Amino acid sequence: MQTETHVDVALIHFPVVNRNDERIGSAVTNLDLHDIARASKTYGVNSYWVVTPDAQQQELAAQIVGHWTHGYGSKVNADRGAALSLIKICSSLNDVLAGSAEHYGNPPLLVATSAVCRENTITYNTLRKKIDNDCGVVLLFGTAWGLAPEICQQVDYFLPPVGGKGTYNHLSVRSAASIVLDRLLGDREDNEKTST
Amino acid sequence: MQTETHVDVALIHFPVVNRNDERIGSAVTNLDLHDIARASKTYGVNSYWVVTPDAQQQELAAQIVGHWTHGYGSKVNADRGAALSLIKICSSLNDVLAGSAEHYGNPPLLVATSAVCRENTITYNTLRKKIDNDCGVVLLFGTAWGLAPEICQQVDYFLPPVGGKGTYNHLSVRSAASIVLDRLLGDREDNEKTST
Repeated sequence: MQTETHVDVALIHFPVVNRNDERIGSAVTNLDLHDIARASKTYGVNSYWVVTPDAQQQELAAQIVGHWTHGYGSKVNADRGAALSLIKICSSLNDVLAGSAEHYGNPPLLVATSAVCRENTITYNTLRKKIDNDCGVVLLFGTAWGLAPEICQQVDYFLPPVGGKGTYNHLSVRSAASIVLDRLLGDREDNEKTST
Repeated sequence: MQTETHVDVALIHFPVVNRNDERIGSAVTNLDLHDIARASKTYGVNSYWVVTPDAQQQELAAQIVGHWTHGYGSKVNADRGAALSLIKICSSLNDVLAGSAEHYGNPPLLVATSAVCRENTITYNTLRKKIDNDCGVVLLFGTAWGLAPEICQQVDYFLPPVGGKGTYNHLSVRSAASIVLDRLLGDREDNEKTST
């Protein structure tokens, strides 16, 4: 049985920035849906919000999700459907916050990850403790070159960039989301265990 | 500057098994190359071996890598080229072991991850200590439904499955590789730090 948390994940396609720091909307990527849904399901995330205001992009995302949750895909790989059923498609961060507040009964803490350092940061260990105490949390991830400034202004806290001891820091959003979920929700005893 | 480790990653496309436990070769997936190369570069991995005996699949992988390391891609996104330049394409696990032994001067420890529990397991913490002591390690990942038995028989140790406290355990190989690298090579101080 999956242990459910009070944690949501949201992947923002608009507004984000491109390599020139210009405000853009990005396209939905099939493997962002699959990989982040699979990681979310593995770590007990409650909802995975896919955020795009573009109607055609919403339709594309819904078709992919429907294939695995109700269509042919659901017959050949039920595990995939279990993961993709966490996906909720919506238009804006405000939709995420409203939906999450309704589900948890209180406005969630809005926490973003960032490949660069920010002022209002929170440590992984501190956030992990809040999650353990059933604090409602929405973990925000940006596509393209990252979240636009107006999204960053709404964020309560930023997590420091993940990585090794070097300076290269260009993980895919799929990898970053997986690592952040493991750091916040992974079974810490795993590191000492030889079997599960 | 990137801190280099004595750790290689290898992604096996043959021999692996399908959902019916039959021995197959899987196709090279573009985002497996990108995501695992980016995570490898981030965590200081020395080489990322892409293993397939199929000549056309090797050519496809080489074209993708070449685009980012020497072609047009290298001009628009040098960071991506830096990651994909870690990729070495080869035909078999024996090629990986020979290349790694030559580079490190000794046969490497062959460690696989597995979504199921195995007998000869090693804890993340124990392997992390070996890596800190400059032990040469090849981390093996399987595509499709996992490594074929003849590959498993060559493995020195298995790492326990990663995940949360629930029972769902169907991460993508891209997510699993990212999480394993973070557990073995991630900056542990990150969890207490508010900035880097």
